[in-house]
Amino acid sequence: MTASARLTGVVPPLVTPLTPSYDVDTASLARLIQYQLAGGVNGVFVLGTSGEGTFLTDEQRQVVLETTVAEVAGQVPVLAGVIDTSTNRVAAHVSAALKAGVDALVATAPFYAATHRAEIERHFVKLAGLAGDVPLYAYDIPSRVGTKLPASVVMDLGEQGVIAGVKDSSGQETSLRELVLSRRETQLDDFAIMTGSEVTVDSALAFGVDGVVPGLGNVDPAGYVRLFKAAVAGDAAAARAEQDRLFRLFDIINVADRKRMGASSAALGAFKAGLHLLGVIDCPITAYPCIPLNDTEIAAVRPLLDRAGLH
Amino acid sequence: MTASARLTGVVPPLVTPLTPSYDVDTASLARLIQYQLAGGVNGVFVLGTSGEGTFLTDEQRQVVLETTVAEVAGQVPVLAGVIDTSTNRVAAHVSAALKAGVDALVATAPFYAATHRAEIERHFVKLAGLAGDVPLYAYDIPSRVGTKLPASVVMDLGEQGVIAGVKDSSGQETSLRELVLSRRETQLDDFAIMTGSEVTVDSALAFGVDGVVPGLGNVDPAGYVRLFKAAVAGDAAAARAEQDRLFRLFDIINVADRKRMGASSAALGAFKAGLHLLGVIDCPITAYPCIPLNDTEIAAVRPLLDRAGLH
Amino acid sequence: MTASARLTGVVPPLVTPLTPSYDVDTASLARLIQYQLAGGVNGVFVLGTSGEGTFLTDEQRQVVLETTVAEVAGQVPVLAGVIDTSTNRVAAHVSAALKAGVDALVATAPFYAATHRAEIERHFVKLAGLAGDVPLYAYDIPSRVGTKLPASVVMDLGEQGVIAGVKDSSGQETSLRELVLSRRETQLDDFAIMTGSEVTVDSALAFGVDGVVPGLGNVDPAGYVRLFKAAVAGDAAAARAEQDRLFRLFDIINVADRKRMGASSAALGAFKAGLHLLGVIDCPITAYPCIPLNDTEIAAVRPLLDRAGLH
Amino acid sequence: MTASARLTGVVPPLVTPLTPSYDVDTASLARLIQYQLAGGVNGVFVLGTSGEGTFLTDEQRQVVLETTVAEVAGQVPVLAGVIDTSTNRVAAHVSAALKAGVDALVATAPFYAATHRAEIERHFVKLAGLAGDVPLYAYDIPSRVGTKLPASVVMDLGEQGVIAGVKDSSGQETSLRELVLSRRETQLDDFAIMTGSEVTVDSALAFGVDGVVPGLGNVDPAGYVRLFKAAVAGDAAAARAEQDRLFRLFDIINVADRKRMGASSAALGAFKAGLHLLGVIDCPITAYPCIPLNDTEIAAVRPLLDRAGLH
Repeated sequence: MTASARLTGVVPPLVTPLTPSYDVDTASLARLIQYQLAGGVNGVFVLGTSGEGTFLTDEQRQVVLETTVAEVAGQVPVLAGVIDTSTNRVAAHVSAALKAGVDALVATAPFYAATHRAEIERHFVKLAGLAGDVPLYAYDIPSRVGTKLPASVVMDLGEQGVIAGVKDSSGQETSLRELVLSRRETQLDDFAIMTGSEVTVDSALAFGVDGVVPGLGNVDPAGYVRLFKAAVAGDAAAARAEQDRLFRLFDIINVADRKRMGASSAALGAFKAGLHLLGVIDCPITAYPCIPLNDTEIAAVRPLLDRAGLH
Repeated sequence: MTASARLTGVVPPLVTPLTPSYDVDTASLARLIQYQLAGGVNGVFVLGTSGEGTFLTDEQRQVVLETTVAEVAGQVPVLAGVIDTSTNRVAAHVSAALKAGVDALVATAPFYAATHRAEIERHFVKLAGLAGDVPLYAYDIPSRVGTKLPASVVMDLGEQGVIAGVKDSSGQETSLRELVLSRRETQLDDFAIMTGSEVTVDSALAFGVDGVVPGLGNVDPAGYVRLFKAAVAGDAAAARAEQDRLFRLFDIINVADRKRMGASSAALGAFKAGLHLLGVIDCPITAYPCIPLNDTEIAAVRPLLDRAGLH
Repeated sequence: MTASARLTGVVPPLVTPLTPSYDVDTASLARLIQYQLAGGVNGVFVLGTSGEGTFLTDEQRQVVLETTVAEVAGQVPVLAGVIDTSTNRVAAHVSAALKAGVDALVATAPFYAATHRAEIERHFVKLAGLAGDVPLYAYDIPSRVGTKLPASVVMDLGEQGVIAGVKDSSGQETSLRELVLSRRETQLDDFAIMTGSEVTVDSALAFGVDGVVPGLGNVDPAGYVRLFKAAVAGDAAAARAEQDRLFRLFDIINVADRKRMGASSAALGAFKAGLHLLGVIDCPITAYPCIPLNDTEIAAVRPLLDRAGLH
Repeated sequence: MTASARLTGVVPPLVTPLTPSYDVDTASLARLIQYQLAGGVNGVFVLGTSGEGTFLTDEQRQVVLETTVAEVAGQVPVLAGVIDTSTNRVAAHVSAALKAGVDALVATAPFYAATHRAEIERHFVKLAGLAGDVPLYAYDIPSRVGTKLPASVVMDLGEQGVIAGVKDSSGQETSLRELVLSRRETQLDDFAIMTGSEVTVDSALAFGVDGVVPGLGNVDPAGYVRLFKAAVAGDAAAARAEQDRLFRLFDIINVADRKRMGASSAALGAFKAGLHLLGVIDCPITAYPCIPLNDTEIAAVRPLLDRAGLH
């Protein structure tokens, strides 16, 4: 991995717009990217959890990668999720992503099988070898993977130059603060620490996190950019006010009837519904077999957008 | 799905022997299959959890499928795991397995993303459509997938003819008994209920389960066949004695130092070490990034094999 | 602890009948005890989880103990739950129970605070010292206590003479079988192993468990006694048929609307509703703050009793 | 409950000093209280989780209450934990605490038995009735109780005047922010929201929490008071620096060998060891059956105190 400026700012994990027949809707994806760029984001992250990467075939993943790289056209870095169950399966995604010309890779620990920290380290070491000069980020999302990346593993991998940073979606502020303190103590200045939590960004930036990868940023990239800029400028009150507004916008994930669908469907369906209502994407459907929001649920997103000042 | 004899008996989930350079060791796999057939098994299940299916590339999976189908040569059914994160990704494995000529397919619920029972049902319905006449079995393994397949979902899918049976690796006897009782009440006589637990087989057979898919059956297929035959013959004491012996043989999964490796590595490494010590496979290595058992740990398996009468 | 015959058979964990004003209803408790004795039970266990011991004041616990000892009048052993958060608090219950003249004590590991196995051992050792000649049983109920008693701890305590046996409500058949095998290997013949699961009794008895402590036995003690006798007589088919009938009777715990109340309220409310409908106890109310079953829910228990042949 | 100034600031949950023979060490407790008052705390909380309330007999609890009320002598409010398994058992502690003259009560949801939100509400309503004019606080500690108090339940109870505030030890920043936002939206200005997390206090104060109940505050009350004052004064950098220092001081909970003892013993043992090394309390023993820190472990606390500037 070459030395590179540390990743900072707002890097939304883009949803993958789909057609009613479950193909990747490249026109909508292109509009989504332009919406993000217009909002001032510092990067985009495709094929992550919000991107439904684990729901897409290899061919669909490739369409997403190529469309994104072409549309972004170098204006901001493109991070690509290479999420799969184990090292060798992830390796195939790494090759595909590199071929598409992405700027960075994002991988979780292995999942499905239970793994030990030594095994997780081997996993990232091998992937970094394949990535070459392209930075590799660790993605800590225990709710999906079943394993929390210990701070000591993350920092070890950082000190070895294996990973360029971490996206922490653990929701554990204590763990995130441990990373920030450890980074300072080890003077690992190039190491990026990003939070994946939509609703605690002002806090995280205040104690030293570099940026945020907010699923809700799909819907309101400009809001997260304002929040980030306020925090960087030291205007804690403005950052908090923006965060509070976004906290309430995040209520859109609760409009769907959870008796009908899973948590993932409800959240991603709400992000897509918001983008649909804002005219950014054509169809709010989520990937098969997820149950889509129905018309009533989609309509219920509207007043929450309005309340947040999004029209 | 065409009408078919209900799956019964001992169907071990075969490990995938690897070379020291992590290729599929087809010669060892062939010997493992002959060892199983000699032991009298009623079927073999490849690319399951014990088969490290989620650790193998698509190409490696294909080698396993083709080697197995060729080596088994129709003597018993070959079941193929098609385990992946979501419907469309599983679908690709279904195509590959059908092309290889397997006799049945085994799929879990989607994982990584949280799914709802309606979404799980859609998942299996679509897969069954792709499988055509080849029976599809649901694989319930909440420790890996994060979701327990509710008995009502399993039975609904059975009554609709979507699935031909279930492999229950939940470890929950209550849930297994609910399935057996429901099957009787709905007169769903063709529906197979198999347990994935190595150590409670005599009980499960006694209350009406059809057979077992025991990881430990890799090491001692003949023992499980004796257990099954004793149970079918109504000789509960013989079945229990065989189960007790196998219960203690299962202690091999505890020889590895869990400070060095994960639970999966310890268990599969022990099965492979046993097969290696018995001369069935050449190399006991587990799939990357799993830490393999060291020489001391491999040697510690020997006395447990001896105690169980395996030489 | 003096040598004593090993505890065996059916030992229901009695519910505590309450008046509409939440006093202990001693008349109903006396009738419940007579109903149990008429059913042929081998012992009764009061102030356990089914007995709502943790919901009762010290004074109410004492009333239950004294009423039970008097009513049972030595016909079968009376086991008393001494369940509380820590050793010294349990010790007070031990004194009270001994004063009331019970025949045995049943204690869980400490809870609320996280404890280590060495701490759990110290807990039982101290309690056994206080119990003197009165046998002490370990009660393994991880769903409530948050800690699974490891088989090795249970067996260590048994070999040291600290505990006379264990009531296993872990629902983990593997763990229960480990206890049975370990007992045989250590020739700890006096050590009692009881299961707390209502719905897997025939299996448990078949692999060597001594008896059952079934909450559902409140409603149908005679059924459990028939099941036990069939199993002891080696009539596995009769045992299984009885278990299957009781398995379906256990559906009464699902009549209550779980949107209105917790799992504990639904299950204990159903047992009490059954006893009320059978004329054994006056009032089906559960302890404060549990929400009681409403009239519709109570009525829904009736057809399930009828289906099980209870009138 | 009468109108009262909202609780704010630093309210350490006092440990209960014990003698080597496990009696309450009232002289050490008095010194601990003076150490806290000298540190400038805004209140003290006895018989909480750090106070090992669930490990003490009723008599010991009373000694703690009376010693504390006498020693504090009205200089700051005394909050008393009334933690027990169910409403009626808590009620007895409420009576005792009121008799001792405490200023406020702190209760968890019922535990051991699974409870529903409606049952939790009934629990607090009844306790508030017993408390009369003395404020009742809800204590949300799902790691011990097994149930997370939903924000909507907490706010409902606040709006009904049942509880005067909440101590949130859930470690979930999202949930804490929801409370703060809801309080603002409902204009429930008297309702106190305190965090129980030692290591995220600057963040919590920044987004609107009123204060902290830090176990580590036993050892360094003055540090938490400085942190609180800096935050109130709007000096975020000073607050963060103080928090960072305390974050590293919190490493004392990791000195004990977790192979020997539980998490609770390790943390409380470290707090007591720190106080012992600082000359505040005589004996660092934790309550029976907890394993105490050994001399090596106690000595290992010293350099961490030194690093934090505590001598």
